[in-house]
Amino acid sequence: MSAGAGGIGVFDSGIGGLTVFQALRAALPPEEHLLYLGDTARVPYGTKSTETVVRYALEGARFLARRGVKTLVLACNTMSAVAIEAVKEHMPFPVVGVIGPGAEAACRATRRGVIGVIGTAATIRSGAYAHAIACHRPDARVIARACPLFVPLAEEGWVDNEVARAAAGAYLSDLRGSGLDTLVLGCTHYPLLKRVIGEAVGDGVALVDSAEATAAVVRGRLEERGLLAHRAAPGEDHFFVTDSSDRFHEVGARFLGGPLQRLEQVAISE
Amino acid sequence: MSAGAGGIGVFDSGIGGLTVFQALRAALPPEEHLLYLGDTARVPYGTKSTETVVRYALEGARFLARRGVKTLVLACNTMSAVAIEAVKEHMPFPVVGVIGPGAEAACRATRRGVIGVIGTAATIRSGAYAHAIACHRPDARVIARACPLFVPLAEEGWVDNEVARAAAGAYLSDLRGSGLDTLVLGCTHYPLLKRVIGEAVGDGVALVDSAEATAAVVRGRLEERGLLAHRAAPGEDHFFVTDSSDRFHEVGARFLGGPLQRLEQVAISE
Repeated sequence: MSAGAGGIGVFDSGIGGLTVFQALRAALPPEEHLLYLGDTARVPYGTKSTETVVRYALEGARFLARRGVKTLVLACNTMSAVAIEAVKEHMPFPVVGVIGPGAEAACRATRRGVIGVIGTAATIRSGAYAHAIACHRPDARVIARACPLFVPLAEEGWVDNEVARAAAGAYLSDLRGSGLDTLVLGCTHYPLLKRVIGEAVGDGVALVDSAEATAAVVRGRLEERGLLAHRAAPGEDHFFVTDSSDRFHEVGARFLGGPLQRLEQVAISE
Repeated sequence: MSAGAGGIGVFDSGIGGLTVFQALRAALPPEEHLLYLGDTARVPYGTKSTETVVRYALEGARFLARRGVKTLVLACNTMSAVAIEAVKEHMPFPVVGVIGPGAEAACRATRRGVIGVIGTAATIRSGAYAHAIACHRPDARVIARACPLFVPLAEEGWVDNEVARAAAGAYLSDLRGSGLDTLVLGCTHYPLLKRVIGEAVGDGVALVDSAEATAAVVRGRLEERGLLAHRAAPGEDHFFVTDSSDRFHEVGARFLGGPLQRLEQVAISE
């Protein structure tokens, strides 16, 4: 295959990674093929052990490798936090996660160097954001907190009601007065809860979503290596899921603002 | 093997089925071996498609069959609702779910014949409780409702705070005045939220938990078939999980009131 052939793989534990998919579509030339894989049969990853998440990440990466991708984006924060090194080691193409780009964006946004990070239990336990932030800004103070209920709230569509506000308050309201000026939304679902999260931490806190920062890094990486598509025809979107595609179709259409083409149910466990 | 040899398999998607395990321990002779399997690497089942839940249920049943169980209890409501027929068809021993016993207990408890059922999206979508209730009491009116947030709330330990109360209110408070006098807690996690659920539906509603009813049915089934253990030595407990056992150990000890013996991580996917 010539340089630039092959698609860009986007791998998520479920449906939330469509925000990263969408940011990539906006940032990349329209000729790029995008292949999205959502492991909807085993979602969520954020409540599971490192060992299990690494195994699932490798299975998904190998599935996309067999479909000839030229680069792989781990759209799921949990997977990026605990499995990126293992995936990089086993894959012959560039692998980009969302933690590094999100951490960099937070370091650019903070004024006082007090950065909050919220995510799943597995992401927070890994310390990956704190580590990545320390690489860019060793003097920053990082306050990390797991918010396990935010994913089911977003999936229930309860993003701006009394339950969502009570949950955001329980997790975050004690951060008021901590000097926090930047908060990383360290899970693909959390941007949906932006309003109640913002209310809980108070005005003047910048909320950082890593989807756009990640898309910019992917574009840069492809340019550097001369891997951008240079075919004449427009790129195609392909979606693969491991559980039945009905619900994915419905929620996906809401995420992307139109019906999904080329959606297929596949097996990836080995 | 002689009649009565072999253990009793208890299969759940995760940790919630330990309430059924505990009820079985209390209802059965102490000589019985109990083997618990929690598919913690793929939990939850309640948000997934029928096809995927059936596949997982058969994989777990075959795992326990290889360990020589003489009967199998599906402790998970979702699995009982959508996969019990498939499991019965493929297994050579009796298979008992929690839906039938729970429905019967509700029919005994109701005075006015207005029965509520709450459960996961998959359990409610299946209509299994409404069907089972209609078999015992064709005149009953059934009000069914999915409450997806109750499982993550119970797992977070938020069973009696403002978030739990707001969620219970959002799901259930409009049932006040519906004539409801009995409510089936159709998911193993829900009994943990008994207090806020009871507050939401109001006084005078009987809350039915199927664990004890299921244990009584299992005992009766074993007696009928002459399958009760008749060895001299005390029975043993074995626990199998598909994700790392640390968290299971911790939460399990809380459920059972003491440390778990013989806990092992296994692979069941085929």
